[in-house]
Amino acid sequence: MKLFRYITDEDVVPGILLDGKAYSLEAFFEALGEETGAYDLDEIFFEEEGLSVLEDYLEQYGTSELQALEGPIEYASCVARPSKIICIGLNYADHAKETNAPIPQEPIVFFKATTALCGPNDDVIIPRNSVKTDWEVELAVVIGAECSYVTEEEAEDYIAGYAVMNDYSEREFQLERGGQWDKGKGCDTFGPLGPYLVTPDELDDVDSLPMWLKVNGQTYQNSTTAQMIFKVPQIISYLSQFMTLLPGDVISTGTPPGVGLGFNPPVYLKPGDIVELGIEGLGEQRQVAVSWEDAY
Amino acid sequence: MKLFRYITDEDVVPGILLDGKAYSLEAFFEALGEETGAYDLDEIFFEEEGLSVLEDYLEQYGTSELQALEGPIEYASCVARPSKIICIGLNYADHAKETNAPIPQEPIVFFKATTALCGPNDDVIIPRNSVKTDWEVELAVVIGAECSYVTEEEAEDYIAGYAVMNDYSEREFQLERGGQWDKGKGCDTFGPLGPYLVTPDELDDVDSLPMWLKVNGQTYQNSTTAQMIFKVPQIISYLSQFMTLLPGDVISTGTPPGVGLGFNPPVYLKPGDIVELGIEGLGEQRQVAVSWEDAY
Repeated sequence: MKLFRYITDEDVVPGILLDGKAYSLEAFFEALGEETGAYDLDEIFFEEEGLSVLEDYLEQYGTSELQALEGPIEYASCVARPSKIICIGLNYADHAKETNAPIPQEPIVFFKATTALCGPNDDVIIPRNSVKTDWEVELAVVIGAECSYVTEEEAEDYIAGYAVMNDYSEREFQLERGGQWDKGKGCDTFGPLGPYLVTPDELDDVDSLPMWLKVNGQTYQNSTTAQMIFKVPQIISYLSQFMTLLPGDVISTGTPPGVGLGFNPPVYLKPGDIVELGIEGLGEQRQVAVSWEDAY
Repeated sequence: MKLFRYITDEDVVPGILLDGKAYSLEAFFEALGEETGAYDLDEIFFEEEGLSVLEDYLEQYGTSELQALEGPIEYASCVARPSKIICIGLNYADHAKETNAPIPQEPIVFFKATTALCGPNDDVIIPRNSVKTDWEVELAVVIGAECSYVTEEEAEDYIAGYAVMNDYSEREFQLERGGQWDKGKGCDTFGPLGPYLVTPDELDDVDSLPMWLKVNGQTYQNSTTAQMIFKVPQIISYLSQFMTLLPGDVISTGTPPGVGLGFNPPVYLKPGDIVELGIEGLGEQRQVAVSWEDAY
């Protein structure tokens, strides 16, 4: 399934893409919510095995009960605010090289503030005093069920699906303001997620998905998930040794070469810049950079 | 006001301490929830100015409508799971010295996984493969209203209250496993918060609160919040430059000297150890250390 969330005048509503056509899941979620409390693509939904319930529903009714969506869709993040957005650093061998960092012996882990989460085509806000706002196309994994201390073999059972994430990073805040990265990773709008949450059955091989990112039409990142040092099951197993992962939690798995920091001289975003990115099978994003003064 | 959350057979319920007596706020919250959606001491409650509503209610009715709580109370964390738990590192000059770190020029910022949040007297779980589980008594601040880019002068308007936090830290995970601290800060049960959320009017001076921590009856930390390098309004203003703070968000403001890491040789927790801590005016906590094998 390819699920998404879209913005209406009043609310954020889940939807689904079926054979290239978009449908609202409003009626489905109203019924599900009354029964289980799951009104959105959120922790409760995954916990209540909403994906299976939805699958059964579609098998039984197809699209007969669903309202087709006409016209352009304004996407929200493809899952609702999770308990955690966990990120893996330097997880592409070539990216580690371009930032002059050694290849990590084990995953580098940091958090993105969940307030950074936003829609895939929302403006990216360049924060006040930022001169080093940078991009990072990444494969994100959404957790489907609570897990602690799981093995790599078990990890696949805990995956709800995959999505595109742009792990925006303010390099000065991240690297030159005390050494802990979180400060430069969690600014508002630094976490566009989506457009789609794609369930694993839709992907032939999550370990060989082409991914790319352009700024103002020029390609900066162009790689595939085959370059990942630590693969998704390793990452889930690893993280679950340090904390309980909850349904709906988002893990962003690192970025390939081509971030602005890696160029000589470095290239950073300025207001008006257009960032486009995508991962094959997961959809595309497009953000316009705006100054914080125009955003608050 | 001194608010808390306690565990019943079925649920977690807010309560209040008035003149040393504990009362359930179940009926108050049921009514408030129906009107506003705020059924707990959570983001919606603070957003809906629940503190003012409760204050007005108490002025009007006193304790006449409240059910007194008899017998021992099992405390949950004093606020429900927030969008973020943000921590400040090395914020006591003497603590920076004991860890051989330089005095920070600006706050060091990291996150604690919100899944680490727990009740003030819950067991602390020593994670698998941990040999360096350490303690940190800290003053926590709870945010009362959404804020971005606020000044130090404005910051006080955004404080809901204060609480005791034990910022448990696995030193090997934190310091020797890639350099980013989050890995050693967010393990399950590493964030006991409470017992009370204490509103600012209850405290004469938040900048001179004695604080202490004992392990097995021996005092390890014994200081006051007067030793903080960056004070609460500075911290709120500073953080709000990097991310939007939401109502209910928790900020833990750093620890004084006396953590296990600072001793020669270092002292770390083992199963059966008893950790007791408190901050004057905010209450006390007591945790028993248990092995992960007995907890999962």
